[in-house]
Formats: sequence, C-alpha cells, structure tokens
Amino acid sequence: MKIENIDISVYPGSEKIYMHGEIHPIEVGMRVVHQHPTVKIENGERVEYPNEDLFIYDTSGPYTDPNIHTDINHGLPRLREKWIEERGDTQRLDDISSEYGRMRRGDASLDAIRFPYIENPRCAVPGKKVTQMYYARQGVITPEMEYVAIRENMDNKRRGIKSNITPEFVRQEIAAGRALIPANINHPEAEPMIIGKGFSVKINTNIGNSALSSGIEEEVAKALWSCYWGGDTLMDLSTGDNIHETREWIIRNCPVPVGTVPIYQALEKVNGRVKDLTWEIYRDTLIEQCEQGVDYFTIHAGVLREHAGLVSKRLTGCVSRGGSIMMQWTVEHDCESFLYTHFDEICEILNRYDVAISLGDGMRPGSIFDANDRAQFLELEVLGQLTTRAWAHDVQVMIEGPGHVPMNKIQDNMDKENRECHEAPFYTLGPLTTDIAPGYDHITSAIGAARIGWLGTAMLCYVTPKEHLSLPDLNDVREGVITYKIAAHAADLAKGFPGAEVRDHALAKARYDFRWKDQFNLSLDPEKAKRFYLESRKTEPGAEEKFCSMCGPNFCAMRISQNIANSCDK
Amino acid sequence: MKIENIDISVYPGSEKIYMHGEIHPIEVGMRVVHQHPTVKIENGERVEYPNEDLFIYDTSGPYTDPNIHTDINHGLPRLREKWIEERGDTQRLDDISSEYGRMRRGDASLDAIRFPYIENPRCAVPGKKVTQMYYARQGVITPEMEYVAIRENMDNKRRGIKSNITPEFVRQEIAAGRALIPANINHPEAEPMIIGKGFSVKINTNIGNSALSSGIEEEVAKALWSCYWGGDTLMDLSTGDNIHETREWIIRNCPVPVGTVPIYQALEKVNGRVKDLTWEIYRDTLIEQCEQGVDYFTIHAGVLREHAGLVSKRLTGCVSRGGSIMMQWTVEHDCESFLYTHFDEICEILNRYDVAISLGDGMRPGSIFDANDRAQFLELEVLGQLTTRAWAHDVQVMIEGPGHVPMNKIQDNMDKENRECHEAPFYTLGPLTTDIAPGYDHITSAIGAARIGWLGTAMLCYVTPKEHLSLPDLNDVREGVITYKIAAHAADLAKGFPGAEVRDHALAKARYDFRWKDQFNLSLDPEKAKRFYLESRKTEPGAEEKFCSMCGPNFCAMRISQNIANSCDK
Repeated sequence: MKIENIDISVYPGSEKIYMHGEIHPIEVGMRVVHQHPTVKIENGERVEYPNEDLFIYDTSGPYTDPNIHTDINHGLPRLREKWIEERGDTQRLDDISSEYGRMRRGDASLDAIRFPYIENPRCAVPGKKVTQMYYARQGVITPEMEYVAIRENMDNKRRGIKSNITPEFVRQEIAAGRALIPANINHPEAEPMIIGKGFSVKINTNIGNSALSSGIEEEVAKALWSCYWGGDTLMDLSTGDNIHETREWIIRNCPVPVGTVPIYQALEKVNGRVKDLTWEIYRDTLIEQCEQGVDYFTIHAGVLREHAGLVSKRLTGCVSRGGSIMMQWTVEHDCESFLYTHFDEICEILNRYDVAISLGDGMRPGSIFDANDRAQFLELEVLGQLTTRAWAHDVQVMIEGPGHVPMNKIQDNMDKENRECHEAPFYTLGPLTTDIAPGYDHITSAIGAARIGWLGTAMLCYVTPKEHLSLPDLNDVREGVITYKIAAHAADLAKGFPGAEVRDHALAKARYDFRWKDQFNLSLDPEKAKRFYLESRKTEPGAEEKFCSMCGPNFCAMRISQNIANSCDK
Repeated sequence: MKIENIDISVYPGSEKIYMHGEIHPIEVGMRVVHQHPTVKIENGERVEYPNEDLFIYDTSGPYTDPNIHTDINHGLPRLREKWIEERGDTQRLDDISSEYGRMRRGDASLDAIRFPYIENPRCAVPGKKVTQMYYARQGVITPEMEYVAIRENMDNKRRGIKSNITPEFVRQEIAAGRALIPANINHPEAEPMIIGKGFSVKINTNIGNSALSSGIEEEVAKALWSCYWGGDTLMDLSTGDNIHETREWIIRNCPVPVGTVPIYQALEKVNGRVKDLTWEIYRDTLIEQCEQGVDYFTIHAGVLREHAGLVSKRLTGCVSRGGSIMMQWTVEHDCESFLYTHFDEICEILNRYDVAISLGDGMRPGSIFDANDRAQFLELEVLGQLTTRAWAHDVQVMIEGPGHVPMNKIQDNMDKENRECHEAPFYTLGPLTTDIAPGYDHITSAIGAARIGWLGTAMLCYVTPKEHLSLPDLNDVREGVITYKIAAHAADLAKGFPGAEVRDHALAKARYDFRWKDQFNLSLDPEKAKRFYLESRKTEPGAEEKFCSMCGPNFCAMRISQNIANSCDK
C-alpha cells in the first residue's frame, strides 16, 4: 500500500529535535521552527537581531524525522516496546485470544488487504494490572509519565517560564483520575500523550468509513493527515467493510493513541440486528480490539432502560450512534444493557492491556432545544458512578460530553461533569453553539469548544465542515483539525497554560517585522497562509516588502508605527 | 455596469413578505421560508403534519423581491425619501457643498465610471438637527424607529414569544445613547436597522479596494453579496483610485447602512503625506461623504499625542490604519490631532445629515501580547469623553473595539467600554483569540466575537480568511459573513434574545424529520449545505432517505431513535 496525494514528511523551516529524559532513557520528539533575524537599519547600517527557535508540540511522529525510515507496509518503530518489556508484567501470547480475530486471520481471502506484519499480541501476566493508573497509584513514574511531562513543558525551562508539570505531578494526576495516558501495551508505536485539565488542551479526530464510502488506503491517509496537522488522538469510527483489517493498518502506522466504539463492530457481526447483540459477542470484540492495540474504547454504558421514555420527549431524540443502539437494545430486551450489567468484567479485560474507557454520552443533545435536559444529565450521573467502578479496577477513564449546547449552558455542563464524575477528564464534541449552519459546523462548534476548553475540558473532539451532511475527505480533516487546534490553543491561552503564549508572541513579532516566511512557518497551516498571501502578490515574499495587500504600500499601519517608534527612539 | 457571477435575486424555498406599521404607513420586508410537512406512517397510513413558515431577518433589500425591478445603473428605490421629506426639516441643496465633490462632478474624464443618476444632496434646514437621537429625545417615534421595532420582532407575536422591543422602547434606547439607527438623509435607499445591546447582534462587512486591487464593479458586487448573505452594515474602506465614484455606486445600490473612514480619502487627497493633512481637507471630505449618503464615519479622535510613547512599548505597535495616520500626525505636528480639537465642529456637520460616529479604536491591540494595555484603555477613556460631547450635539455614537484579545481578557473590554462610554453600543473587530492561525482568522475571531456579543457587544465586524494576508474576494466575503452570522446568532441565543431560538428549533426538527430540503433552506448557507450533501449522494434528497452519509443507512441514530419513540407511543 502507498499513500499518495499527501506529503507528511516535512514542516517548512522546521527540524525535528529530541529532548532527553532524566529518570528514564527516553527521547521526546519535538518540532523546532528556525526563524530569520529581525533586520533594522541603524545609523544607515543594516543590523541583524537573531530570533529564537520556537518549539512546537509535535504530533506527527517519526514521519517528519528524516533520519527515521518509515514505510506503512511495515508500520512505525515500536517506541514503547522496551519500556513495556522492562516492566516484566506482560507476556506475548501464543495466539490471538478473540475468536473473531482468529477467524479473520485464518481467512485467506483477506490476505490481499491484510497488514503484512502482524505479531502476536501482548497481555498482562495473569493476576497483574498494567495500566498507567495502576503504576501511578503504586507511586511508580513510568517512562510514559516522564515522556508527557517533558512534552507538555517543551522549552519552558530554557525560557524561564514556570510550570508545575513534573513527572511526579503527572503521576499524581493520573493516580487521582484527573488525567490519563491512553497507552495500550499493544500499540507501542504511539508516542505517549496526556489528557487532563492540568495539561494543554488536546484534540481528537474522527475518521472511518461507512457503508457509503471509502477504502483502507483512504482511511490510513486520513489518519496520517490528521497527525500531521496536529490531531492528538484518533478515533476510527468505521462501520463498513473490513473494519478489522482497516484498524490494523491504522494502528500500526499511527503515532497517536487510537480510539474506537466497539459496539459498531459488534453490531456488524450480528448483521445490524440490534436485538441479536449479546455480551459474548461484545466481549469477544473488546478482546479482539485490545489485542490489536486500540488505546481507548467509547463505551455507552450510561444508557439506561429509562432513557427511552426520556428521549421520546426530545426534539431530536438520540443522536449518538452507540447510544441509540444501546437504547434500542434495552427497549427490546426490557432490561439494562450488557454494557452496564457487565461493566466490571469490561474493566477486568481492559486493565490487562491498559485500554482506557471513554464513557460515551449516548444521550448527548443533538439540538439546542435538547441541551442540558434530564436524559443528558441522568446519563452523566450514571457515568460518574461507572467512573468510580472503573477506577476501582485501575482503569483510566474520560467522560464524553455534548453535543449541541448554546453558550450560556456550557458552564453547567462542565460544572456538573466535575461534580458527578469526580474530575475525570472531560472530552467533548464541540459543543455546537447553534443548529442553523450546516456546512459550517466546524465553526459553530469551535466557539463552544474554545469556551469549554477554557473552563477545563481536557480534550475536544473535532467537527468538520461536513458534519450532518457527508463524510469528511482529506481536506475536511485538515480544516477540522486546524479549527480545533485554534479552539484548543485559544483555551490554553485563556486558562494560562504555561508557555502557550510563546507561539503567539513569536508569530506576532514576525508579522510586525514583515518576516513573512517566519509568519507562515509559525502558523498552524503554513501552506494555506502562504497560498493566500500569494493570491494578491504572485511572487514569494521578499525582505523588502514592508506592507500587506490589505492596506497596500501607502497605508501600512505597522510600517507607520515602526517609523514613529524609530523616531521616538532617536 | 452589470454584476455577473453572483445571483442575489432569490433565496431557495423562500418568499419576501412585508409587515405593516401601526404608527406609520411603513412596510418592513422579511424573508419567509416555507417548509414541507412532516410525514408519518400511522396505522399503515401516510399522515402529513404541516410545519410553520419561518421568518428570517432579511438584509437583502429589494433584490429578493420579484415584484420590484432593480437595476444597479439606476440605484435602489428610495424607501425613506418620503419619511424624510415629511419631517419638513431638510432641504434639497442647489449644489454639492464640498469643493472636492464639485471638482469630481465637473471632471468629464470620470463620466465613464460615474453613477449616472446623481441627485443634489439634502441637508438640514439651517439651525435644525435631523438625527434619530434628536427626534428620540424630543419624544418622537420616527418611521425608522417603528421599522426596526417590527424588524427585530419578526413573527414573535404570532408565536406568543414575549419581547420588550416596542417602538417606544426603541425610542428610549436611542435617546439614552444605548442604540443607534445609522440613517443618513442622503441614503434613503437603506432599510433602517438598529445597533444596540437590547437588540439582535449585528454584523458589519468590510469591503474596498487598495492600491493592489480591484475595480468599482468588483466592489459593488462584494457589497451586494454581503447583503445577500446577511451583512447588516457595510464599510467601504477603499484606499485606491476613484474612491468617490466607487462610493456613489455602492451607496445608491446598498440596502444597508454604509460606513467609511474619511481619513483614508483625506490622505489620498494629500498624496499620502500624513503631515500635509489639515482640518480643512478633512472637513471637506466629511461634507463630501455626508452628501453622498454615508451613514456612519469611523473617526479616530481618541488618538492622543501621548499615544506614540505608549505604542513604542508594544510588540506590534499600532495596527489601525486610521490610528497610525493620526498618531504620526500628532508626532509630526507635536500637538493633539484636528479630529480631537475640532470634534465639536465635526458633530455640528454630522447632525445636519444624521451621520453617526463610530469612534475608532486606533489603539486596538494587534496581538495577544498587546491586549488590554495602557495605550488601548487610555484611548477608550478618551472615547468615553467624546461620546458625551457627540451626544450633546444629538449625534449618534458607537464605540469601536479590539482587535486581538485572548478569551480571558474579553470581559474586561466589555465592562470597561460600558463604564467609560456610558453604554454606547460597542462595535468590535472579532476579537481574535489567538495570533497563530493566519488563513483562519475568521475562526480565531468568531470565537471572540461570539463571546463578546454574548456579553453585550452590539455589532461584530467580520474578519475573513484572508485577514493579514490578502484582500477578500467574493468567496471570502461570503465565508466571513456566514462565520459572523454564526457568532452573532450564537450570541443572541446565549443572551436570550426573544425568538432567536426559533430558527434553531425549526432546522433541528427538519433534520430529525429527514426533511433535507427544509434543512438546507433554513440554514445560513443553503447552497453549500446542499452541495456538501450531494458530494456523497450524487442525487437530490428524496423523502425516503432516512439516513445521512455520516452513519450510513444501517446506523442512523435518529432513525433508530424515531423507531423507539414510535414503539413507546404504541
């Protein structure tokens, strides 16, 4: 397989560097942007003032390191494998534990689309728990914890920016359940990252085919494209053909944690007949995906039998796929769902692979009208109870949130989540702050996402311009990721995350200095910024172009302002 | 002249209707979207439930009324002419009062680009003030006031939605300075609209050529395009050739109030030499534009001599064109600007035409670093003093605001504006909540705009994707307007503006009913919503398509949810 059309091998004007651990022999990859000097004319002479390198949190993994050979047919290097082995509490299995997994592997007709180098999975030694939460509670600072501490700090120390984020702080936050590091032992290719309100706000990207769409190659391309533009985690929401094989390709090549919604695949296994879903089929699906390396599962265990009655009062009913499936199941069987009744068994499976739970909001409002209603908040209360149960098994947890919520009702969501779910990290879809703009829901939702991120939401699930209308293509993925990087960064600035402002200040200075190339290179989307610039100029920016086409050469406020500053200095 | 490439004559599924005044014989145009019925199968039979017409605030003017013939070579019908005449306090002049205006009219070389039907201007009878604020303070409810009261309420009464907006409330708000109706007596083509925190949040669109760009036809097209998509006011910021003639074409064809920054043209008149600017040149420019029909002027009278010193401490200096011009002037002449020293004379000119003042924020921060600094807030204090002076002349006022401001510093801006400027309407540019996303600054700023709109800002000045990089083209205008309609509407919902939620609920219901065409027609951009939908379907939506391509036919949460609701009902 080959990924064409997209180039993810280089960021303009940038270099990959590594910062070293002090506790563990780890290397944390980062992007560094080299800047041009500021040029001034002083006493008739040209004087250059150097501008510092700028560090950028880098989600692109080894693809942007020219010293690492990558080939999607072999998968990424297994960064964490040694760390996992050295803990000595896991073993490589002789076979796949899932019946379905074995069946797919034995099916020769799938050879042509199968990832070529599948290893046997790893699992905890019987009786052991291998989750980051377990280690944290034992007082152990894992390499993963030190890795994220370095990653969150970047070059703050060198800049003299104070930060409370240390490896020990990371450990404490994970032990308390206020943060998680999704890190399945079967996804050693992923670079550790942390989700929690004490850290930078993260974004998640959804990809995945549906019955109407697309092939494995396209989904892998979307996955890598998402990482290149800054996606922190990736959910594969495929519901169409060959889910199992698609997922293998994605995980083996994905440098960020991968999440799924296992009920989708379980439903495919019973040919879409909700009533036929059973705990056994679901359980086998969990194990299948744990052993492939999925880092977190969305589990809609908070949908209760009584929700069906509440939802029928709504304007837009239930808009969560997983939620509606489970609601239908509870109605058809007239009892609580197997996700709810078997929740402890689920946790016992997950803590053997360190798969985190993202407690799904099956009752998220699908319209402004339904925001913050009883169906939604009842589920949130149930999620709080399930959180406590998962933590009892040392399983890491985050809580999914809405949905469609007007701005004035967002704070209530965050407050209630903190209260009911004991400060487990909140992971929200938007929220969309109005229903009236299909085609622009990346924007309606970025407004809500920035707000809720500022209030403490740890991860924002992106929304693309195609939301409600169609499946995102590569360009929508990019647009969605950049839009959510904006929301997350605006939230980081507002909550005073240490060092967040450094990039803003660097870009603003480049802008004021008319260092156009630096302005592009420091921006979230250098290619688009440069393309827009060229639309009115037709030529690459030169050092002498001390104006922009907004105002034209005679009216540049910044140039006038510099001239005044110069004359004031004299 | 002919406008091609854009069709502004029809909204899909919609009709233009008029609501009648009770005090004055006025007709207020509105858009009504007709919806399809909701279809249900009950006891095996198809039953149709009708869905109510939806009223939408309509900024497109006569262009979308098939009963009104429009021709840009003749200009729009003069809706307000009779109202103005009937007040009996204005007169039609025998000639243009501005020297420059007469010179341009006498220049035969401009005949080819001149609007063909220029009438002599109208002015207050000597000694009279003709502003909406003057009438309001006299206790007079003008047709303009009743017009906007009807326009803000739409069909709230029919729906039983309570609203405090009456013609008398409008009058009180204008008398108190908390709202304004920009309505030059020489722009009778414009439909009255109101700007104030007690009303729906409005958006302004900037267009205008620069030395690098575009012609009259293109600017007129942008103006009409902006009105079609929902722009409430329009600023012509041209700085290139033929500003005077371009403006004439725009005003004569523009159904919304038009604003300008007269200092731009004044500077053109002295060939860009700031030092050569004089009160006399500026004064003639004001009169020239008053008599053409400009509805509000941005005047950077709050820039003081001492600002130059404050600005030199900034990261990005002064980023306002008008502000930097005036700052340079104060430095070069080492005294306060003529805008400041002649402010009362400015007001005496403006109240003879009812041109409103938008007090410019020449010191708005151009970067996150500079937000809420002394330079910015000193100017805001000066603007507060000038507001009181303008009101003493019965001149309507609004206050321009930032700029680049992180979310956590937005509230301070709104609070300080309310306090210092005595609740005069705030009119902000964004604010942009981060500097790091050139190419996406419509989004960085929509986040801030929605927030500040919720807090009470009355009008939001749009930002397009081209901000900082290039001049907006037609597509950018559309993208910018829709983005700001989203921000304004999200703000209206959050502040509980009466009736704002009606459109959200209608669209959400259409979505839940799988009434795809209604969903498109009710949306801010029907064409784009439909285009995105068709990307994955290839055929027009039919009534039987009860799923979307996000989930595919087997996984539709809404369909599952409806089936459950149906089974619960039985």
